[in-house]
Amino acid sequence: MNSDSGEKATRREPLGPGRSERQQLWYEVIFEHDTPAGRTFDLVLLIVIVVSVIAVMLESVTSLQSRWGTYFYFVEWAITALFTFEFLARLSCVNRPWRYVFSFFGMVDLISLLPSFLSLFVRGTQALATIRTLRLLRVFRILKLARHVREAQGLLRALSRTWPKITVFISVIVCTIIILGTVMYLVEADAKSGFDNIPVSVYWAIVTMTTVGYGDIAPVTPLGKTIAALVMLLGYAIIIVPTGLFSAEMITQRAGLPPRPCRVCGHQTFEVGAKYCTLCGAELNPS
Amino acid sequence: MNSDSGEKATRREPLGPGRSERQQLWYEVIFEHDTPAGRTFDLVLLIVIVVSVIAVMLESVTSLQSRWGTYFYFVEWAITALFTFEFLARLSCVNRPWRYVFSFFGMVDLISLLPSFLSLFVRGTQALATIRTLRLLRVFRILKLARHVREAQGLLRALSRTWPKITVFISVIVCTIIILGTVMYLVEADAKSGFDNIPVSVYWAIVTMTTVGYGDIAPVTPLGKTIAALVMLLGYAIIIVPTGLFSAEMITQRAGLPPRPCRVCGHQTFEVGAKYCTLCGAELNPS
Amino acid sequence: MNSDSGEKATRREPLGPGRSERQQLWYEVIFEHDTPAGRTFDLVLLIVIVVSVIAVMLESVTSLQSRWGTYFYFVEWAITALFTFEFLARLSCVNRPWRYVFSFFGMVDLISLLPSFLSLFVRGTQALATIRTLRLLRVFRILKLARHVREAQGLLRALSRTWPKITVFISVIVCTIIILGTVMYLVEADAKSGFDNIPVSVYWAIVTMTTVGYGDIAPVTPLGKTIAALVMLLGYAIIIVPTGLFSAEMITQRAGLPPRPCRVCGHQTFEVGAKYCTLCGAELNPS
Amino acid sequence: MNSDSGEKATRREPLGPGRSERQQLWYEVIFEHDTPAGRTFDLVLLIVIVVSVIAVMLESVTSLQSRWGTYFYFVEWAITALFTFEFLARLSCVNRPWRYVFSFFGMVDLISLLPSFLSLFVRGTQALATIRTLRLLRVFRILKLARHVREAQGLLRALSRTWPKITVFISVIVCTIIILGTVMYLVEADAKSGFDNIPVSVYWAIVTMTTVGYGDIAPVTPLGKTIAALVMLLGYAIIIVPTGLFSAEMITQRAGLPPRPCRVCGHQTFEVGAKYCTLCGAELNPS
Repeated sequence: MNSDSGEKATRREPLGPGRSERQQLWYEVIFEHDTPAGRTFDLVLLIVIVVSVIAVMLESVTSLQSRWGTYFYFVEWAITALFTFEFLARLSCVNRPWRYVFSFFGMVDLISLLPSFLSLFVRGTQALATIRTLRLLRVFRILKLARHVREAQGLLRALSRTWPKITVFISVIVCTIIILGTVMYLVEADAKSGFDNIPVSVYWAIVTMTTVGYGDIAPVTPLGKTIAALVMLLGYAIIIVPTGLFSAEMITQRAGLPPRPCRVCGHQTFEVGAKYCTLCGAELNPS
Repeated sequence: MNSDSGEKATRREPLGPGRSERQQLWYEVIFEHDTPAGRTFDLVLLIVIVVSVIAVMLESVTSLQSRWGTYFYFVEWAITALFTFEFLARLSCVNRPWRYVFSFFGMVDLISLLPSFLSLFVRGTQALATIRTLRLLRVFRILKLARHVREAQGLLRALSRTWPKITVFISVIVCTIIILGTVMYLVEADAKSGFDNIPVSVYWAIVTMTTVGYGDIAPVTPLGKTIAALVMLLGYAIIIVPTGLFSAEMITQRAGLPPRPCRVCGHQTFEVGAKYCTLCGAELNPS
Repeated sequence: MNSDSGEKATRREPLGPGRSERQQLWYEVIFEHDTPAGRTFDLVLLIVIVVSVIAVMLESVTSLQSRWGTYFYFVEWAITALFTFEFLARLSCVNRPWRYVFSFFGMVDLISLLPSFLSLFVRGTQALATIRTLRLLRVFRILKLARHVREAQGLLRALSRTWPKITVFISVIVCTIIILGTVMYLVEADAKSGFDNIPVSVYWAIVTMTTVGYGDIAPVTPLGKTIAALVMLLGYAIIIVPTGLFSAEMITQRAGLPPRPCRVCGHQTFEVGAKYCTLCGAELNPS
Repeated sequence: MNSDSGEKATRREPLGPGRSERQQLWYEVIFEHDTPAGRTFDLVLLIVIVVSVIAVMLESVTSLQSRWGTYFYFVEWAITALFTFEFLARLSCVNRPWRYVFSFFGMVDLISLLPSFLSLFVRGTQALATIRTLRLLRVFRILKLARHVREAQGLLRALSRTWPKITVFISVIVCTIIILGTVMYLVEADAKSGFDNIPVSVYWAIVTMTTVGYGDIAPVTPLGKTIAALVMLLGYAIIIVPTGLFSAEMITQRAGLPPRPCRVCGHQTFEVGAKYCTLCGAELNPS
């Protein structure tokens, strides 16, 4: 159900036995990005997606809605009709429609259509149509971003390798936030400064440690302010650790990872251009 | 009094002379994480801890407390009873109970129980029961996070190596914050903008330099705003230094600096614990 | 239309066939930075630019404007006259005036003059005169910052190499921000807390994820606060990724990756532009 | 006038011709940190400094001042007398008093005394006595922080090497902030949202780009909010660049810098353990 399988569902059999020439034509326009027709289709699609998302966003502004409500209504349904037609067209010109439906982009297409139809039955779901933003991810496919995908994989690999360290880190932070929130609740309880209960105090601790600092809740007692200052310095210091970890991981990865394990002792040598295992001295790549 | 000693207190003598078979059974359920019974116990314990912390947090919300107060009371004491029983069970099935009590997790268990019992005598200590969050750290033990512990040690080693540089850094920052706070107090003294005394101004300086920026205290005079702008830029710049230091430390640590040059080919191997030169295979430190 | 072409337009032909000796004198004063006269001219010019920008800024303060309005008016036009004269002088002493006009610094000079003259016909454009700040970039030329330019190129190269990864990153962030904004709009719709429409909610999501946190819009419902806490933690986490990417890129660039292995000893030299192996002295790329 | 010269002024001649034995005794107590008497003196001094700074800070709190004003007055002058005596004692037991006065720590001592005596003549200067915080830097000397000083030098070297790149960066940022401030002033001029003049708008731009975000000035018009969102994203992105630069510099420095220039071609080879110049192939360190 990832982008790959979606691509495969459509690309592997460009002109299968059960596919007519008309299907093939549609296929080229909708799925391929090299022909002039395909490029035009992609561009028009992207513009429609952007227009659609902007329309949904502006529709939620009361003053605009009351003045141009009917236009929004029209645009909304015109685009929904267009997307529905496009989705059906996509289904009709691939050999295995169900496989496309359950591919990453198929699911995104489907989910993008739901809010509009849901709004016929349930009030307020219209706003959910901004989920269409996800369709913009289609731009990766259009730009042939194999490179981007590889980059993203590099990112995810670095993140997943850093994960154990970051888990330790997050566990400690979560405990710290809950305990600090409780302490502030006790300290500021009588000060009417917004620390009314522990959940709110924990929310304050998060707002403060991430250095967002709305100011809707702020300590007023001297002790509260002292603790708050410590929380801020802690939050400020904390960002350093994962940044350093992730930087180190990215550099290690770029400098020649993944490491090759020694066939004698299994040790993984991290150095670029290593010829002998650093632990047992065995040759790494005897030809 | 660290996690290791706690583990050792219990694990070293799995079936000592003075331990009955019943004790051994309890021991396996409570302390071991490999048997099905042990895993179930661990899972149940974690869930109870999470429920307990959430209950304490929600209890502090007045509206919830007034409606479901009796339920909270019941949950609170049921969990306290459960934790007390668990703690006693842990004590009863290890050979050296006192050693467990003074181990890291023993202390956490004990401290987690105190607030509930204290609340019988002193009002308001109930909220302190969120200290139970610390019990969640037990998750590290369950997940057999030898790996995590090693990661944490790597983190701490990098932090401790960066410490001298960071100490210099922090001393300078503390002096800067106090002096800037004083200057703002003098500049904004007559502006009724909240800089009422030096401690509050120092608090403002911390709020500003860490980029939290509540806005409860903000300069109003042109000179105050100018100084504040400088404080912000300073705080913004400052985060760079420790981040760079820590990143460099993590990378150096991973790369195994300082490198030892090979006496045969002169190549410097950067890996930690390297025994053989990665280029010529010569032994690095022949005794 | 970059700084180079601007330099070339003037510097290549120091005393062309059509240039009088007076022109040559002016040229030396205005364009060269080595002679005493040139240095004095540069210094005076920089001071006038700074004074000019400060004057435009202070002019916008109503209280100052009402008291010293006529002085500001005088300073404003005196400086405009000066800059106009300087621009014409620059044009008159280069051989190809049009080429200078369309060079980077020529465009900056021209654009810096426009607001003042525009203010004669259109009200309010006067404030645009702060565009003159751009003229301060001239300081790079005065300080002969070939080095700075090389540094800037290094920066841009690292940025452009990191770009594909950062694009992936930004696309995901934009989608996340729009969807989170919509969710908050739905959650906080009835709470009168400022989430009046989707564009404003998206604005709030940006304010929160970048950890700016004005506090003019802040969630009040428990669910809204919970989602907001997640948004903050996400924003806090997100800064790590591009920082790590860029750090890794800068280090890799400096280290000269990808390294080329020596064909004699197999050692990989990390330095940019390396011609000989650092270990055995063999030539790296014998043609 | 740095810490070194201060040390030298006192340490070089432990018992010069003009120094009596009593002077020598005082010298050991005040300036040396190895003898028991010296250590006790250092500790007492540090505690007095901390007490002194706290007293000055608390004195500024009106409620505390009105209740314990006389105590503060007493503590203030007692400590001032003590510091004056200590300063004179320091002067009396070194051979070249004037050299001590103009050393780094001598200047700090003198400046720390000024505010108290100034407060006899000018009102309000008392608060400036927090400048005494600077005396805490003396802790570096006590802890024999040769190591710290070396670390600080490493920091400064890395900062100064990164400086050219950071200068380019800062110039661009300053221009951006001034221009963005002006644009916001024009956009929000009629909205009564606090963007009353350009200096205030520039202040807002700094508050926003550094992600402090007080919220005392915040855009209210849709266009203003859109621009503000861009400013935030810009500020958020900007922190990445200097962090990456500085990290790279720290790592390069640690990995074996300063580089050794080749005696044949002058090229500086950055690689650890390099034996041959990477440019001309000449041997780097022929013995």
